[in-house]
This record gives sequence, C-alpha cells and structure tokens, in this order.
Amino acid sequence: MSTPAHVGLLGGGVIGGGWAARFLVNGIDVTVFDPAPETAPRIQRMLDNARRAYGALTLAPLAEPGRLRVTDRVAEAVADADFVQESAPEREDVKRALLAEASRAARPEVVIASSTSGLLPTRLQADCAGPERVVVGHPFNPVYLMPLVEVVGGQHTDPATRDRAAAVYRAVGMHPLIVRREIDAFIADRLMEALWREALHLVDGDIATVDEIDQAVAYGPGLRWSFMGTFLTYRLAGGAAGMRHFLAQFGPALKLPWTHTTAPELTEALIDKIADQSDAQAGHRAIEDWERLRDDCLVAVLQGLRSQDTGAGRTLKDYEALLFDRGQARAVAGDLPPDRPLVLCRLRVRPDWVDYNDHMTESRYLQVFGDASDAFVRYAGFDDAYLKDRGSFFTVETHLRHLAEVSASRTIATATQVLGADTKRVHVFHTMTLDEPGAADHGRVLATAEHMLLHVAVETGRAGPWAEPLASRIAAAAAAHADLPTPEGAGRRISMG
Amino acid sequence: MSTPAHVGLLGGGVIGGGWAARFLVNGIDVTVFDPAPETAPRIQRMLDNARRAYGALTLAPLAEPGRLRVTDRVAEAVADADFVQESAPEREDVKRALLAEASRAARPEVVIASSTSGLLPTRLQADCAGPERVVVGHPFNPVYLMPLVEVVGGQHTDPATRDRAAAVYRAVGMHPLIVRREIDAFIADRLMEALWREALHLVDGDIATVDEIDQAVAYGPGLRWSFMGTFLTYRLAGGAAGMRHFLAQFGPALKLPWTHTTAPELTEALIDKIADQSDAQAGHRAIEDWERLRDDCLVAVLQGLRSQDTGAGRTLKDYEALLFDRGQARAVAGDLPPDRPLVLCRLRVRPDWVDYNDHMTESRYLQVFGDASDAFVRYAGFDDAYLKDRGSFFTVETHLRHLAEVSASRTIATATQVLGADTKRVHVFHTMTLDEPGAADHGRVLATAEHMLLHVAVETGRAGPWAEPLASRIAAAAAAHADLPTPEGAGRRISMG
Repeated sequence: MSTPAHVGLLGGGVIGGGWAARFLVNGIDVTVFDPAPETAPRIQRMLDNARRAYGALTLAPLAEPGRLRVTDRVAEAVADADFVQESAPEREDVKRALLAEASRAARPEVVIASSTSGLLPTRLQADCAGPERVVVGHPFNPVYLMPLVEVVGGQHTDPATRDRAAAVYRAVGMHPLIVRREIDAFIADRLMEALWREALHLVDGDIATVDEIDQAVAYGPGLRWSFMGTFLTYRLAGGAAGMRHFLAQFGPALKLPWTHTTAPELTEALIDKIADQSDAQAGHRAIEDWERLRDDCLVAVLQGLRSQDTGAGRTLKDYEALLFDRGQARAVAGDLPPDRPLVLCRLRVRPDWVDYNDHMTESRYLQVFGDASDAFVRYAGFDDAYLKDRGSFFTVETHLRHLAEVSASRTIATATQVLGADTKRVHVFHTMTLDEPGAADHGRVLATAEHMLLHVAVETGRAGPWAEPLASRIAAAAAAHADLPTPEGAGRRISMG
Repeated sequence: MSTPAHVGLLGGGVIGGGWAARFLVNGIDVTVFDPAPETAPRIQRMLDNARRAYGALTLAPLAEPGRLRVTDRVAEAVADADFVQESAPEREDVKRALLAEASRAARPEVVIASSTSGLLPTRLQADCAGPERVVVGHPFNPVYLMPLVEVVGGQHTDPATRDRAAAVYRAVGMHPLIVRREIDAFIADRLMEALWREALHLVDGDIATVDEIDQAVAYGPGLRWSFMGTFLTYRLAGGAAGMRHFLAQFGPALKLPWTHTTAPELTEALIDKIADQSDAQAGHRAIEDWERLRDDCLVAVLQGLRSQDTGAGRTLKDYEALLFDRGQARAVAGDLPPDRPLVLCRLRVRPDWVDYNDHMTESRYLQVFGDASDAFVRYAGFDDAYLKDRGSFFTVETHLRHLAEVSASRTIATATQVLGADTKRVHVFHTMTLDEPGAADHGRVLATAEHMLLHVAVETGRAGPWAEPLASRIAAAAAAHADLPTPEGAGRRISMG
C-alpha cells in the first residue's frame, strides 16, 4: 500500500492546505483537523489552484478529486487514516502535543509524519505511542507543486518508516530525499536559512532592497539551482579540471569577508571528500556533456519563463525583440532580393523538438512555418505599434506536406513565396529546406506549407483591410512574385485518389 | 552607441571565453588578450556551444558571428575596442595591474569593466588612467546564457559609466543589476557564498553528500529561485497576511541553530523596512495573482526540465507514467460506439500554449491533432511492440482550418472520422470542439484537420501494408464510418477565390 486511500491531516494552513490539495488532486480522501472556521473554503481554493496547475502540468489523465472533510477533533481526522501528516505552527510544544494525541487515535501501524521545517524528530516523537512510525516529511510551498520532501527519522524511528513515507510521497508525484542524519533544519532549510540571513544583513545595511536581492537570485544563480545544486554548478565552473581545480581557485575566497557565514577549514581531507563525492555524483559524464545538459536546461527554463513573461523570461523576450529589429534592419538594408522567394527564417532543430526516432515532430513543422508567416508580416512592417493601434492577423487555413525527415541540430531555412493578396488577405507558400552549405543534402526540401492569412483591424475586432505600411508592402511583394512559377504542391487537396 | 562594434577582452578562460562567445554570437568582433596557447580553440568550442544554445533559445534572426582574434599583447586587445571586459584570475594584484595597463592603451572614453566575483572596484580602479570609466560587471557562468550581470561602481566611477556598461550588457541580452553600494562579493555572490559555506559544513560534518545537498536545492528551493527570490517566496509563504506575518511566524527561527550564519537583530525598524520594501516590490498585485504566477512559472520550469529529463523534470515524467498507468486501469475497454466519430482526445489548453491574446497558438492545434491521429492508431492496436517489430506511420499531408479561438485552461476534445483507407494509408478527419458540458459555448467547433497517414514497415524502411491487428481494425473503422456524411470542409484546397 504505497498510495493511501485516506489521509489524516493535522492543520490546514498554507502547508496543511497544500498537502490537502496534493492528496485530493491525486484522488485520495482527506480529513483535516483544524478548528479555524475558514479552513474548508481555504482548502477548497487551494484545491482549485492545484487542479488548475495540474491541468497545465500534464496531459496525463487525473483521477477524480478525493473527498475533503474538516473536523475540529484530532481523533476524527486520524482514526480511519492510512497515513497522517501534521502541519501545525512551528512550535515544538504545539507539535509535540498534537503528535502525541494523534498517535493514540491512529491505527498502530499508520505512519505519522510532521511537516516541521527544522525541529528535531527525536524530540517531536518523544511523547508518541509507537514512536517508531513517527518521522519528519518536510515539504515546500506550494506543497501541491513542489517535488522535494525531506524525510528525516529520529532516534526512535524505524528505518522502514522512512521508506514507507517516501513511497507515499512518490505515489503523489514528489521527490523524497532521505536525510540520513538528524540535524536542526535538515538540509534545504539550512541552505535557505543561510541565504536568508545573509539577505537580511544586506537589507539591514542598506546595501540592497528586497527587490534587488530577489533579482540577484532569479536572474542569476536561481536559474542554475532549478536543475543543478551548488556543487555541480561549481564543478562545471572549474572547467575540464573539475572540482579540485575549482576548490584550488576559489578556496582562498572562503577566508574573504564575502558573507557573514564562516566556512569550515578547507583541509586536504575535506578537499578529498568533496572531490571524491563530486566524482561519484558527476564523474560518469564528461564535462562537455554536463555543459550541454546545463545549457539545454537553462534554455528550457528560460523558454518556460518567457511563456510567463516573468523574470529572466522577460529578459529573453526583450532580447528577441531587439534581434527581430536588427534582423529587419538587415533585411531592409537590401540583403533580400524582392523578386525571389524570401528567406526569412533560418534556425537549428532543437534537441527537444525530435521524437524517439530523432525526427522533428509534426507540430514543430507548423511552428516553424508559423514563424515564417510571422517573419513575412514583420518583413512587411508589422511591429508592436501596429499590433497595438492598427491590427493583427491570423491564419485561417493551412496545407502542409511532409516530404522528408530532419533530425536534431540540423539547420533549416524557409523561403516564402506570395501566391496572391487582396486588401485583407495574403496567400503565402513556404518551402522548408535543409540549409547547410557543404552538406551532401543541402537544399533538400523537407516540407511545404500554404497559409491563408487574414487581417483583423483593432478598431472593429473584425476582418478588414491592412493599414500602412503593410498594405503597400504586401502588394509590392505580391507584384514582385507574380511572375514566379507556381510552386509544385500549391493548391492541393487531400484525397486517396 | 550601446552595441559596441568591437570588444577587447582581457583573459579567455571559463569566464572570458564565455564573454567572447556572448559578444561573438551577437555579431560583435572580439579581440582577446590571453597568452595561453589553447585560448583560440577553447573559445571556438565555447562559441560552438553558444551558437548551439542560441539556435535552441530563439527563433529570432541571429547575426553572423563576429570575428575572433587572440593576442598576447594587452594593448592590441584594447586599442581599437569600444568596450573592454577583464576576466583574469580572482587575484587583486593581477587584476589591478592588468586594468592599469589596459587603461593606458584604450581610448580614454572607453568603458573598462572587470568580471570580478567580489573584489572592490575602488581598489581595482586605483592605478587606472581615467578611473571614472572603470566599473565592475560581474557575470555568471555560462556567461553566454546567464542573464544576470551585477554592475558596481567604485569611489571614482562616474555614475554614467554604470549606465553605459548596463546598456552594452542589455544589447547582448543580459539583465544588468546596478549594485548601488560597493561591498565585498556584491549581492549574488554573498548569497551564493553563504549557501556554499553552509553546504561545506554539511559535507564536513558528514550530514549529507554533495549529491544529496544538490538534490535538496534542485528539487526544492532552486525551482522557486529561478523566477522569484527569497523575499517574494517568503511573502507568499506568509499567505494573505504577507511579509509581516511571515516575519512574525519565522522571525523566532532566526535565533535557532538552523545555519552557521548569524542573523541581524530583527528589530521593529528592520521589520518595517522589509515589509515596506516587500510592499513596494509586490504590493501592486493581490496574493492570489502572485500565487497563480508562481504556480504557472513552476509548471513552466517543470515542463522545461521534463523535456531535458533532468532533476524535477524527471520526477514529473515518472509521475506522469504513474498517472497514465492509473488512467489506463480506470479506462473501460470498448465503450466507444464504432459507427460514430471517435472521441479519443480530451484535454485542457495549457497556459503556456497561448499567445499574448490568450489564444492557443497555431502550432498547438497541430500538436493536438497529431495526438488525435496517434490516439486513433493506438485505438487500432498500435503499441510499442508493433513499433519495434512491425512498423510505424507518418503524416504525409495535412489540411487545417482555424475556425474559432480558444483560451487557456478551457477543455477541448477531438472527434475522428475515417474518410478512407487502403492497405497502407488512412485518411482521417478530426474535429476539435470545446468540451465543457454546461458552458454556453459547449460544442463550438474550433478547428478541423485532415490527415493522410502512411504506414512504413520496419523491415524495409519503406511504405508498406499495415500488419495485424491494425490492418483489420483500420478497415473496420473505415467500414463503420463509410455511411457517415462527409464533414463540411473535407477535401478543400486553399485559394483566394
């Protein structure tokens, strides 16, 4: 039984409510002990947030949510539970009394976990009946989305209890980390607390504001920390020579007044231990492979944040606007002959665009062709000001032909031919080719796309004529292309015939 | 002149080479002073990494890379430069001498920046000619991808120099953070160093290994830090009552032995300062909006990392495998009436699938329709064993019609009608509708897609007949649909007419 049917929760605040949401969204029934009158509606809101987030997180089928009950009696919350999680305020006396009471009401074999951020499990379990099944399971806010949960046993905890708790957490999508030795604040909170106290000094000393400090994290080290911890990051900063080189290079800085935290003495024994553990962690992969993985993860995170227009994602968005402007400046400068199909997009196939066969997936073709249409309209003068004041455009119809496969990291280009235009529509035909001068298959046609684009005026919200400068530039492009031969494959319909 | 034409770099190691790659990939010529013989090939490798990463990062048009030269003379590196960046080893005497020499060889108005991680600019600029144009610009590894650069002036730095340096950094896609007051290690490195020293204590005390510590960051706080710093994170942990409540709740923990860093005294004045600055940072948005943004960013980061099968992304992947198994266990085989279009896909539009207008982007339509084709072939018996031993299929032609917009989080479904089939092809027509019983627009047709799918036999690698059970099941589906009316929009071609 790794997935419990029914979980008893003690406390329904930010953390307890987050647990409720995670269990409920996984189809598990939950009974929450919390005497506060607003508990049920608050948890309902958190469940709504969780369902919204999971709907976005995955296309995998989700269970119907479990059933939520709220009670003001501890015994009622835990009597029928297959697993108990305590999330009371961070006070040892409060948690200890609550865990003791719950341990007498729960079935004797049921695991009882505490969400404490840093109190010692040995002390929390001291008054419990059956302390061997009491353990810390320390989650992070928002509990329904954050994967990490630190699992820490006390002196009386049966090691099997840690494994059983870990199995429950894994069954609801979490990443349990077994903390092997009990210590105040465990691992993550010690690191967070060190950073937090240092940050408080910066504010206290008027060095930086809270916003500046948050920027210093979120545009920098925080991006790397989302997929690599501090040791792997530094191993890569050491270059090919690795962790030992990094420690030789930055070891002396441990003596500098670079933080309020004093470092341990960097003895030969400690250097050996770190270097050996780092080799065990990362030595199976060459530095070049780690660098590529790091870069791919950074790109993925930056693109994810771009979709949210937040933090470093907004920096990327602003940068891309610059790149488009510069590209347009180069195009207008006359690099593009107007009487031939316009080569407006050139890019490499991203490693995460390919399927298990290393072929670019179907929808990425349309994404690239969509970008080619965007690039054409930008070529004709479309920009943010036009979008704001004059109008937008959308694709009403598309015809795609897939002619050859293309694998990751190859360079492709699109050429755009205007097949026709009226005052509010433009009919374009894109040809996608391999674009690697020197390669044997340079110029191979991979796919074609035919699009009908329709202009929508801002003022009316309906289809209407292009405004200037797009009207004349699109007409000019259509005229310049009028004598080009109709490309093979244009105007097709799909049929078995 | 915010984009320099030519940059002089002093030092071409991990950091200097990263700067070279960033400037080169932005079309800027670079001359690097570095006497080490392997400098040029190392920078060339970093440029290759950067070009690979940028190809993945953006579809925006990139400039042709700038020209790289390497020299063993400082004067040659900086004489023609419009901007100078020093990235020598982290030793004050070395940097100071190098900056002094460069300041005599560079044009007097050229900004000279140092990449130091923590040395004070006032000391670094002390021996320079024209110290007013000397400044710190502290980047993060890999420099060609990490947005943050801390800009710190010394006592002799003209404030305009900071702004000019910031403009250069912004022009190559970075996020400059002006550090208003000079302090050892600036802001980000003080925070990183506090965390790093605490981590060293954990290893030193055998509490955790470097890999366990990295997990404690990357599956937990690191995910949040990639878009929100520590203050905003804690403000949200305070719930609706915000920062003041969080400080009241966790202030006492500052006295606990939760880290080796001592905290400043949490006086009323400090509490007021933090709460006021936090309000200035985040008070313009309701807590619920911040929570949604946080959740959306977490989802985006987790999905990005899933594409790299790394860290918390792998946790998500494993969890989804569980969800698919559970969903399959719930599914009732054969509850689909065969003589009607098959409803095989039902999903919610993800928040990161929409554009700035909150409309699902074009390529996502094809992705969903591609999934519908996959689902149809799976319905006909396609599975991993078939893929391995018998054959695969691909889409040779697609016709899409976009009929209505759909916004994030709405539920959509696809219905699939078989228009025809022969021994190796099947012609399908998908209709995408809003699928929210009870909503006023339930059933609205959003788009249609017509696909021709072609079977490819494993043995020959060429088009060939479907094997069993697909051959008979596809034939059966075609027969069951033969008497259905041809859907409106099938068999169209694109034309202006």
